[in-house]
Amino acid sequence: MNADGSAESIRQDLQRIRAEAPLVHNITNFVVMNTTANALLAIGASPVMAHAVEEVEEMVGIARALVINIGTLSAPWIDAMVKAGRRARERGVPVILDPVGAGATLLRTDTARRLLHEAPPAIIRGNASEIRALLYAEYGTKGVDSRHAAEEALEAARVLSEHCDCVVSVSGETDLIVSGRSVIRVSNGHPMMPRVTGLGCTATALTGAFAAVNPSPWRAAAHAMAVMGMAGEIAAEHSPGPGSLQVNFLDALFRLGETDILRRLKMEEE
Amino acid sequence: MNADGSAESIRQDLQRIRAEAPLVHNITNFVVMNTTANALLAIGASPVMAHAVEEVEEMVGIARALVINIGTLSAPWIDAMVKAGRRARERGVPVILDPVGAGATLLRTDTARRLLHEAPPAIIRGNASEIRALLYAEYGTKGVDSRHAAEEALEAARVLSEHCDCVVSVSGETDLIVSGRSVIRVSNGHPMMPRVTGLGCTATALTGAFAAVNPSPWRAAAHAMAVMGMAGEIAAEHSPGPGSLQVNFLDALFRLGETDILRRLKMEEE
Amino acid sequence: MNADGSAESIRQDLQRIRAEAPLVHNITNFVVMNTTANALLAIGASPVMAHAVEEVEEMVGIARALVINIGTLSAPWIDAMVKAGRRARERGVPVILDPVGAGATLLRTDTARRLLHEAPPAIIRGNASEIRALLYAEYGTKGVDSRHAAEEALEAARVLSEHCDCVVSVSGETDLIVSGRSVIRVSNGHPMMPRVTGLGCTATALTGAFAAVNPSPWRAAAHAMAVMGMAGEIAAEHSPGPGSLQVNFLDALFRLGETDILRRLKMEEE
Repeated sequence: MNADGSAESIRQDLQRIRAEAPLVHNITNFVVMNTTANALLAIGASPVMAHAVEEVEEMVGIARALVINIGTLSAPWIDAMVKAGRRARERGVPVILDPVGAGATLLRTDTARRLLHEAPPAIIRGNASEIRALLYAEYGTKGVDSRHAAEEALEAARVLSEHCDCVVSVSGETDLIVSGRSVIRVSNGHPMMPRVTGLGCTATALTGAFAAVNPSPWRAAAHAMAVMGMAGEIAAEHSPGPGSLQVNFLDALFRLGETDILRRLKMEEE
Repeated sequence: MNADGSAESIRQDLQRIRAEAPLVHNITNFVVMNTTANALLAIGASPVMAHAVEEVEEMVGIARALVINIGTLSAPWIDAMVKAGRRARERGVPVILDPVGAGATLLRTDTARRLLHEAPPAIIRGNASEIRALLYAEYGTKGVDSRHAAEEALEAARVLSEHCDCVVSVSGETDLIVSGRSVIRVSNGHPMMPRVTGLGCTATALTGAFAAVNPSPWRAAAHAMAVMGMAGEIAAEHSPGPGSLQVNFLDALFRLGETDILRRLKMEEE
Repeated sequence: MNADGSAESIRQDLQRIRAEAPLVHNITNFVVMNTTANALLAIGASPVMAHAVEEVEEMVGIARALVINIGTLSAPWIDAMVKAGRRARERGVPVILDPVGAGATLLRTDTARRLLHEAPPAIIRGNASEIRALLYAEYGTKGVDSRHAAEEALEAARVLSEHCDCVVSVSGETDLIVSGRSVIRVSNGHPMMPRVTGLGCTATALTGAFAAVNPSPWRAAAHAMAVMGMAGEIAAEHSPGPGSLQVNFLDALFRLGETDILRRLKMEEE
């Protein structure tokens, strides 16, 4: 697909999200719940957060995407994640997994792996160190704030994608969205973005919104990363620091239009 | 009460909140805790969040209002809500219930009904679909983000108000604050407000602050909705999107004064 | 140390935080997790939030400071706090304790005391009423929003500091940082700051970042309070209310430089 084709395809997804307001069910961490709910609302989707084992299956039964994020795990939440993920698979609802901090502790690495097997995701969205940890069980990362370049994770993402039969979306200066041997590279974004907590988790949540309207998990994941990056660029132009960046980012998501996409999109398909 | 009388009465409530800084005890959902605490602080009240069964009765013992919000339920929280609600009733502390997502899952609908019986609220504050779900056990709503017009819920609110002997405050383009056969309509607000997560929950929290200083739950609920709407209007005038709206909303709550109220208030009593 | 020496010492700490991005492990309350993570990122540190008993010891094993905040307690979190605190002590990682609401309920007072004994902190950071409650088991405070002047807590802080062999940092109009009979007073800050939720908790989190790079807990605690106050002053200059104050505060933390410190610092050592 050429550059103009990608821009048009993103525009169409955005239009569908805004018109249909798909319900995105999030089982996510305490730190970012507010942030990701606001990002989903700003882009036009309908977020719902629900984590009780008693209700997750019912909630995912009315949702169009399920986002699972292991950022602040505890035992009852893990059971709910598995239950919700299984029900989503049965219903054909796309599951997006964010393995936050995989590699930092055994609990996180083991939970991410358990979810890969018991509630297979359509898309895994993480940073390079998390993706590598998932594959290699590499320990000792600094947590959620890795400095690994995304490119270093390309091979890990390819193997993981083939092994798990899912799309692997690796965020970094250049984002890599990997489906088997195919890669989309997205170079939008701004270096101040990692100074706002939860923007990685927000990328995962928006991936859920795009997966709700686009039948290709590969393109949905790439479109979400491109929209994240473009909104971040627009926001950074008026932001002296990360406080205003977070505010302006939501405004930019809300207003992002055809002209912005045509002018800014940096996406390459291979 | 005529329009000027209502404005004066709101001004008096605001003045008392700012002078007395009443402690409002919130047992609320993870998504909005920060948002509602900030709104309570901005208006001049003192928020406290506490949810452990071991401490909720003691905490509500020093509070002047109790806000219960079922947005991210789980079993231990439900027990704490019941305990706190009972203690509040014994002490004559007004209980405000926000049945977030009632109708979306059985857990939420059943919990909301249990609270109605075991810890009867002075005020129920929800959107039209939640209020209808509470009464009719209507299932299959899209969750917390209903598009039902508030007017459609008027009859449900009236029956619920009489049945539960409480005030029912239904938010929508026009808010309906129902006490038996009496209704106050508030038409303040801005269409961008539903694009910020937790503004419904904020309305509930502010209802707690007004109920702490105004002995009429009906007027307290109406004043809270009017202040929400007016602050939202002021904020929207300088907000290109929902990110800045949320920030400017808190500033507007903090600064809201007599002139704003006299100029903007759209409240009708019937 | 004279005023210019203090400014230079703060500048050096800031430089180290920004260069080394120390991992600060937070077991904190639901209300402020997002706020404190953003403040740590804005200042240049790497926050991680993790509370499961299964992983806290492993997480603190890769951290350079541990921040424990009892703002929204429940039983499983208390166990995790004790476990993490013990492990931190074994590893020589500084523990910073924020006894939010100590004195308001038995659960909070008892938990704060249990932590003092079972996971002794290097620094206790609280408001005057919390510090006094810890020492005198004074009940009936209004919670986290005390109006006690910090000076009134000076004697309590001194006794607590000697009794527990730790630094006691009392926030107020003038902050008191007490180590035995020595006191540093910081008079930076702005009266609108208490109208933003979680700025006290943010002071505690930033104290963790400074303790990660400065071997003196006393100076680390004082530097954190000074940086809080100076960033608050800068933010307030452009903030009509607490919504924008919170945003501008993060921008100011991110940008705080040598000139700001030299011009604004109000710190006295005794």
